[in-house]
Amino acid sequence: MEIEFERIALYSSNDSKTIRLISDQLEEILINLGVRILKPASSALVGSNKKSNSDNFIFRNADLIVAIGGDGTLLSASRKFGAQGIPVLGVNLGKLGFLTDINPDELTSGFQKVLSGNYIRDNRFFIEASLSKERNKFIALNEAVIHSAAVAQLIEYEVYIDRVFVYRQRADGIIVSSPTGSTAYSLSGNGPIIHPAVKAISLLPMFPHSLNTRPLIIGEDSCIQIKICKKGKASLSLDSHKTIKLKQGDEINLCKSKENITLIHPTDHDFFSACRNKLGWSLGITNN
Amino acid sequence: MEIEFERIALYSSNDSKTIRLISDQLEEILINLGVRILKPASSALVGSNKKSNSDNFIFRNADLIVAIGGDGTLLSASRKFGAQGIPVLGVNLGKLGFLTDINPDELTSGFQKVLSGNYIRDNRFFIEASLSKERNKFIALNEAVIHSAAVAQLIEYEVYIDRVFVYRQRADGIIVSSPTGSTAYSLSGNGPIIHPAVKAISLLPMFPHSLNTRPLIIGEDSCIQIKICKKGKASLSLDSHKTIKLKQGDEINLCKSKENITLIHPTDHDFFSACRNKLGWSLGITNN
Amino acid sequence: MEIEFERIALYSSNDSKTIRLISDQLEEILINLGVRILKPASSALVGSNKKSNSDNFIFRNADLIVAIGGDGTLLSASRKFGAQGIPVLGVNLGKLGFLTDINPDELTSGFQKVLSGNYIRDNRFFIEASLSKERNKFIALNEAVIHSAAVAQLIEYEVYIDRVFVYRQRADGIIVSSPTGSTAYSLSGNGPIIHPAVKAISLLPMFPHSLNTRPLIIGEDSCIQIKICKKGKASLSLDSHKTIKLKQGDEINLCKSKENITLIHPTDHDFFSACRNKLGWSLGITNN
Amino acid sequence: MEIEFERIALYSSNDSKTIRLISDQLEEILINLGVRILKPASSALVGSNKKSNSDNFIFRNADLIVAIGGDGTLLSASRKFGAQGIPVLGVNLGKLGFLTDINPDELTSGFQKVLSGNYIRDNRFFIEASLSKERNKFIALNEAVIHSAAVAQLIEYEVYIDRVFVYRQRADGIIVSSPTGSTAYSLSGNGPIIHPAVKAISLLPMFPHSLNTRPLIIGEDSCIQIKICKKGKASLSLDSHKTIKLKQGDEINLCKSKENITLIHPTDHDFFSACRNKLGWSLGITNN
Repeated sequence: MEIEFERIALYSSNDSKTIRLISDQLEEILINLGVRILKPASSALVGSNKKSNSDNFIFRNADLIVAIGGDGTLLSASRKFGAQGIPVLGVNLGKLGFLTDINPDELTSGFQKVLSGNYIRDNRFFIEASLSKERNKFIALNEAVIHSAAVAQLIEYEVYIDRVFVYRQRADGIIVSSPTGSTAYSLSGNGPIIHPAVKAISLLPMFPHSLNTRPLIIGEDSCIQIKICKKGKASLSLDSHKTIKLKQGDEINLCKSKENITLIHPTDHDFFSACRNKLGWSLGITNN
Repeated sequence: MEIEFERIALYSSNDSKTIRLISDQLEEILINLGVRILKPASSALVGSNKKSNSDNFIFRNADLIVAIGGDGTLLSASRKFGAQGIPVLGVNLGKLGFLTDINPDELTSGFQKVLSGNYIRDNRFFIEASLSKERNKFIALNEAVIHSAAVAQLIEYEVYIDRVFVYRQRADGIIVSSPTGSTAYSLSGNGPIIHPAVKAISLLPMFPHSLNTRPLIIGEDSCIQIKICKKGKASLSLDSHKTIKLKQGDEINLCKSKENITLIHPTDHDFFSACRNKLGWSLGITNN
Repeated sequence: MEIEFERIALYSSNDSKTIRLISDQLEEILINLGVRILKPASSALVGSNKKSNSDNFIFRNADLIVAIGGDGTLLSASRKFGAQGIPVLGVNLGKLGFLTDINPDELTSGFQKVLSGNYIRDNRFFIEASLSKERNKFIALNEAVIHSAAVAQLIEYEVYIDRVFVYRQRADGIIVSSPTGSTAYSLSGNGPIIHPAVKAISLLPMFPHSLNTRPLIIGEDSCIQIKICKKGKASLSLDSHKTIKLKQGDEINLCKSKENITLIHPTDHDFFSACRNKLGWSLGITNN
Repeated sequence: MEIEFERIALYSSNDSKTIRLISDQLEEILINLGVRILKPASSALVGSNKKSNSDNFIFRNADLIVAIGGDGTLLSASRKFGAQGIPVLGVNLGKLGFLTDINPDELTSGFQKVLSGNYIRDNRFFIEASLSKERNKFIALNEAVIHSAAVAQLIEYEVYIDRVFVYRQRADGIIVSSPTGSTAYSLSGNGPIIHPAVKAISLLPMFPHSLNTRPLIIGEDSCIQIKICKKGKASLSLDSHKTIKLKQGDEINLCKSKENITLIHPTDHDFFSACRNKLGWSLGITNN
């Protein structure tokens, strides 16, 4: 039988006993299903270290990355490998995440389905961040956050969308998130839930000094520019992972990245079901 | 000189002294600019009465409807004439609205610009509402609201999106709004501001019984079905204008209408500037 | 043995099979515990009908009212009997409420505790509402709501606190609630949770037209006056129970009532535990 | 003529040209009104440096501290001198604050009123913070904030009120504020406005991981204990002024301080008027 993903790399951003256990178990299952596991070094797990030869090997050869862990691990696998065009599938530890789909107790049946073609491709875009006079570009799957480096300290910034002035604000910061990120940090700040299929970017001020701000949803093709207006410590944070120091006058450009990521889900995946599970919405039709 | 809109009908949903004054003034200005004013009867104003011969005459002949009043008047002109393919432009009384653009004190310069081609076409979609076993379809430019007929009385309903179960809720009601409506009633209920270019529909529960609901943004091509689960008085309200009584078991279907409406704006129109004016955001770049 | 409440009347606002079952069971338990059940007529249940001789009999003779049902039943018993000085204890059907304490499956043990003196007295105040030029006074244990009679229709009103102007607002309405009501309708409108021991009243606008309003908490001894400014249908609603029509110019006075109500709780009653149960907060210390 | 405050010290937390100008002007005005200005050193301004002999001199001799600056300066004067029993009055620069009352352009008339007895005494309490096994106590007039030291990083903590478990939460942090602080940082996080006369403390989670939390208002005499449950960087911040590092297992105790502060206001001071000015509420009775 033909299988869909012949060469799979297992990925985790940490190396705990539990993860190693699931990883070993999954390796066995996948080999039995006819998959070739890519082993860059002595471990079945691709580390989250800096780019290395083994990463290059993965880039050239893997048909699928399986990220083992929580949503954080999947974010990291997505930025590192997913943005290079390799599809990513999440095996979650603990509770079901918004991004991870297969539970450790259904590894065999879950991967049988996926390998025999019963899966959905789900494309998500990254938010790309850059500073106006610098070359470096950074990507985030969930959100870019511009914020004061100290709690309860204001920053002051101006927001432009497609070169048009929107507002000048004083706030602890501002969250710019993709639909993927709308169920992450932005949601904790009272932002709306945006279905992954909506072509939009959300802007949410954090502890704004004025009371009349609201979440703002714009088209995914719009370019956002944020200018830091006042002295003081400010930072740009991407997926709560990478942090870049900002100074007065810095202009941060945020837009949809050219790269995107393909998440692989079992066919029974359902965004609203994930919402009900994760957010504690009423569990079913007959239940109240 | 060629002008853009040769035959213009003036519309208002009421007949106050102020409106008649502006209407008379505008008629004079437009005639001087070479426009033919369509007068269905003895008045320069197309009434908001039921469909009549004069409406048919307008449908066949007008190149543009000028709605004189507030956003409510423009909503009414949009549903009546805009949905038939005739562009609509708003002359606002009092404060600038989100939908009306030309102030009474700039009638001449405003219309000179527009008639000489300096305008923007801005397409907005309607939300179409229908009951499952009935033929009638209704449209709303801002929002459809399903609600208990009495204040502080719960209704219970299930929401399906593209036939997939989303949640069952007890609440005073639910607001389903277009991006156009996101700055109207939905905003009062703490909903997000959605730029008109975003292809999305927003669902916002009103006084929900559970604390973990949030505004939900879905793609504009999704079909929403809401089933009324419990006895009790419930209604469907469209643009706070038309109200339809609902009963237990009723299924309300809500989706983007095939008809849409073209709003005409002077070229200096700017959504974010309207936000700043209407919502009291910081007034300018240098201002704090 | 001396018991605490010798003469108890059972109360429910409806007459369902389930309630009659629990009522009969409870009557038997209480008689065995040495209580005299007050039977105004042929039924063990005091009806919620208008004031009658039997009510007078209850007023003169009962040491305790046991309200069987949900929070609505307890509200009704509180307004009717509690405000006359008779303590009230709630037996809840279905889920535990904020006001009801004893579950049907622990009737015997629950009432043994209470009758042997293991109970807490919990005093709550009513909100008293009156119109400026009228004599009638109405009380609400949870909240008074002044609102437009139609959904998504604004009313306009001015709020004065202790004769000092606070604001003029356009909104669907305003909720004025006691701490007791802070976990009821006000909570659905995003109002804060106010511990019953806080001597405060909360004002919460409903769907306010301006974005800069917030819940306002004032001292319980303050007098609130709300003036209806515009024509249009408005109403005053008390505990979602009694509704009074309002007209332009009406002044509604709201303050703490002289009457208050004593709720009787088993000694293991705990407000925060009720919050965790009712609101789905994390269930325990070890749980996440 | 007898004057109310014979010996006044002028205070500012910074030393800008504008402040020195106003300070010099005020000194002249006060001397003409018969006041003795306490000059601890060569400057008319009491510095905000650490406790020194000159502070002791102020403590023993001043009848009133005049804090020149914004709300931050008044907070600092309140903690330093107000908590020792010396009344504080605020002269604001720029916009009127919630705590500062006299504008630079009405120094003469403002102080004439106050010195001739036309003032209000307004007592506010401090929040006192201490760690369970340590002696140091810290006070805050606005709020104590326990938070993750990094943005978008969760901390996990348990909250107990009067030794009763309330909830265990994962969030960026939690704001515990006095009524005075309810119009400061807590308000930016969507907390309610609490009138200064209400005897209450507010708890507001910041970016909580669960969606069903709400602001919680408890009595001012309640003791709050917050236990840090997880490793990770956490801090305690008081009035955005003093920061204390926390570690796993730390128990922070928060309660009303024994010390309180007397603010002096001109008799035309009005909390709701300050709300309208600062928060942009409708400006007057006739205005909409």
